[in-house]
Amino acid sequence: MQFKLTKEFIERLSDKVNQKDDKWILEHVFELHHADIADVLDELSAEEAKYVYYLGDEEVQADILMDLQDENRDVLIDSLSTKEIADQIENLDSDDAADILGDFPEEKIQEVISQMDDDEAAEDIVDLLNYDEDTAGGLMQKEFCVVQLDWPVNRAIMQLRKQAEDVEKVFNIFVVDNAEHLLGVLSLKRLLIANSSTKIAELYNSKNIISVKASDSSEQVFNVMEKYDLVSVPVVDYQNKLVGRITIDDVVEQLKEEADKDFQLATGISEPIQSGASIWKVSKARLPWLIIGLAGGILGAKVISGFELSIFEHPELAFFIPLITAMGGNVGVQSSAIVVQSLARGDQNISGMMSKIWKETLVGMVNGILLSLIILAIATVFGGFNLGLVVSVSLFTVILVAAVFGTLIPLVLDKYEIDPALATGPFITTLNDVVGLFIYFSIGLFIFSLMG
Amino acid sequence: MQFKLTKEFIERLSDKVNQKDDKWILEHVFELHHADIADVLDELSAEEAKYVYYLGDEEVQADILMDLQDENRDVLIDSLSTKEIADQIENLDSDDAADILGDFPEEKIQEVISQMDDDEAAEDIVDLLNYDEDTAGGLMQKEFCVVQLDWPVNRAIMQLRKQAEDVEKVFNIFVVDNAEHLLGVLSLKRLLIANSSTKIAELYNSKNIISVKASDSSEQVFNVMEKYDLVSVPVVDYQNKLVGRITIDDVVEQLKEEADKDFQLATGISEPIQSGASIWKVSKARLPWLIIGLAGGILGAKVISGFELSIFEHPELAFFIPLITAMGGNVGVQSSAIVVQSLARGDQNISGMMSKIWKETLVGMVNGILLSLIILAIATVFGGFNLGLVVSVSLFTVILVAAVFGTLIPLVLDKYEIDPALATGPFITTLNDVVGLFIYFSIGLFIFSLMG
Repeated sequence: MQFKLTKEFIERLSDKVNQKDDKWILEHVFELHHADIADVLDELSAEEAKYVYYLGDEEVQADILMDLQDENRDVLIDSLSTKEIADQIENLDSDDAADILGDFPEEKIQEVISQMDDDEAAEDIVDLLNYDEDTAGGLMQKEFCVVQLDWPVNRAIMQLRKQAEDVEKVFNIFVVDNAEHLLGVLSLKRLLIANSSTKIAELYNSKNIISVKASDSSEQVFNVMEKYDLVSVPVVDYQNKLVGRITIDDVVEQLKEEADKDFQLATGISEPIQSGASIWKVSKARLPWLIIGLAGGILGAKVISGFELSIFEHPELAFFIPLITAMGGNVGVQSSAIVVQSLARGDQNISGMMSKIWKETLVGMVNGILLSLIILAIATVFGGFNLGLVVSVSLFTVILVAAVFGTLIPLVLDKYEIDPALATGPFITTLNDVVGLFIYFSIGLFIFSLMG
Repeated sequence: MQFKLTKEFIERLSDKVNQKDDKWILEHVFELHHADIADVLDELSAEEAKYVYYLGDEEVQADILMDLQDENRDVLIDSLSTKEIADQIENLDSDDAADILGDFPEEKIQEVISQMDDDEAAEDIVDLLNYDEDTAGGLMQKEFCVVQLDWPVNRAIMQLRKQAEDVEKVFNIFVVDNAEHLLGVLSLKRLLIANSSTKIAELYNSKNIISVKASDSSEQVFNVMEKYDLVSVPVVDYQNKLVGRITIDDVVEQLKEEADKDFQLATGISEPIQSGASIWKVSKARLPWLIIGLAGGILGAKVISGFELSIFEHPELAFFIPLITAMGGNVGVQSSAIVVQSLARGDQNISGMMSKIWKETLVGMVNGILLSLIILAIATVFGGFNLGLVVSVSLFTVILVAAVFGTLIPLVLDKYEIDPALATGPFITTLNDVVGLFIYFSIGLFIFSLMG
């Protein structure tokens, strides 16, 4: 029943576009869900996609536009005149319109806005553009339904008929006073099953109203919506006036993006890449982290070359270089991952920085002692008790240092408002490699010269 | 306006529980949103939490129960008699009830079910228990609202008044025929703003109905809901009969869990750990990956010790050990991360395994050539042209091998239905370390003996 995108379909469509067979296209493409149409357009060339796009009616165009892959949307929009963009923008929800306009230079924004026919929509967009992208204000839309306390249900429904035209998805209705202060929330369900003469005042939920401030960070918004299990949340200003609403679909999208980003940082890919991207693009996206790794490796070589004499006298020291660097890297990434996750969840810092670092130090000690004892035995077998001692003491130290670094660095990054997830990737591994090598050879030099 | 959990509040509440000051507790705790009450209970001792829990009315108890942290919920439920569990279960949505019962042994499930008063609810739960947890059937709930095609709006609303009692959140109403086949979907909004005499047949959306089969995997369900931007999706059986619905809140929860899990695997933490967990617990959770790392390090030592003579003759070979292992690790994790992401997104395998591996090989070549040229110059400075040649050729080979392994392993895991995300963590790094060292020293031995 659901549409399956095939190469054959794309090839056929491409032919039909070249033959300008509009009838076939209307029948076979515009019968689909707009999300599927967007998938189809994503597979066409820019020219073909634009041709098909303009065969749809305005409503469908708006839906498709938001479902296209970002780069394809940009290409399509770039090919439009200012007036055409203004027309397209008018059919979008205000939050989507603001997102698209927000990427334009100041001048072009003004041009587009001035060419819009719907003054109210234009005003909404201008208003939304004032907010930072990563705040509730930047996420919200201006389309929502409101009712007043003293209205009976039938008057509320009459009003909603008008309001709901502009609101694609109505989950909840917001109850406000005359000055637009948020008083509570009413679900559509309650309104629907109520008697027509009942007053809104008797129906709505005024207890524990959950709202967010326009200046709240998007992370705060997600945490609130997730915690309280909301499909939409009202956004208010400092005077508790209702200014917008945020719906769950934006949250789901953002959640996925955030998760993807964290995963990519942890695994050392610098930007999101579609799996269909070209070899050059994929190579380029991976290069930054690899160059950091290379630089780390060169620094490591520098450190080891400083201990060349030790290696000459005790070649067996070289055996455990990979063990030391691998363990330092693993422990560092683990510690930083824990911190990054707890920061992302918005865990309250009841404990504070110092206690987090202290805890990681203890965890490092527990694991360090255990693993050091194991390696003491094994390294002794490899190269005698002295080597065993060197590897074992070094491993313990490296694990401890890596645990502390792994905790400290994301916390510091976060404090300076840099994404702490940066610290989970090759960055921390590389740092720990270099530090770990220095510790290992220093301890080696010390113990071997001491024990003869 | 929103509740902030403080240590002081918990201490005070704990005192009030010990004094059995029910009035204070009812006033100060049960005024809160159930999600906040659950947070409060999570901070109390098991005994205290149970005391407070039972002061709430049944509806609130059910809401709190589902918001508790998993381990605290288990403790609370374990302290209840079979009859008490049966009473609690009856107040839950069918999907939540089935989730809780699903963790019990067969016998206990039957006992609880037999003690339930509401036969219909019991039947729903038994039905849900038949489905695998990771399928649409395992996610869905049996509470939903249905209307029939030939009903006018006012009859539909009358019917919904009855149905909606059991359905906590109504987003969409499903339209069915007499035999319960799914015909389409109707939004509450459309019903609300329609004329009371209009027939459902004129209102509902029968085009592009999106539904999932009960046997679809949960991943398929999420992809469908995300793609089509749905807050609820109807679940049908093989004959297209409506059997349940899945709502967005379950998806959000699962999405977060999945993302956390992938992140944890990529960063080497074997199980989800609350940031408040004890030192022992945290240490234990990290140990498995560290032991893999340790084993890898020991294997690495074994490989290097096999080339002891080479190191004795050319100690400068040791300088670049960390570079080789780090780069192999980084490239391997990058490649596997890309594959894991595209598998998770459910990307259609138009290209297939072989073409994925081939592409990664090409990417590896591009980056390998570039980085090898850089290191040729640098290693030559460190230890002469022969060393430069060894490091450069090895690096190229290691990058290529790591790219292929990184792609191959998650694909193979996925084929054997093992979570491919396992391959992004220390596992692949460790493997690449050992293989990389072998390549490096073999090439070193070869080139040095060749060039003298």
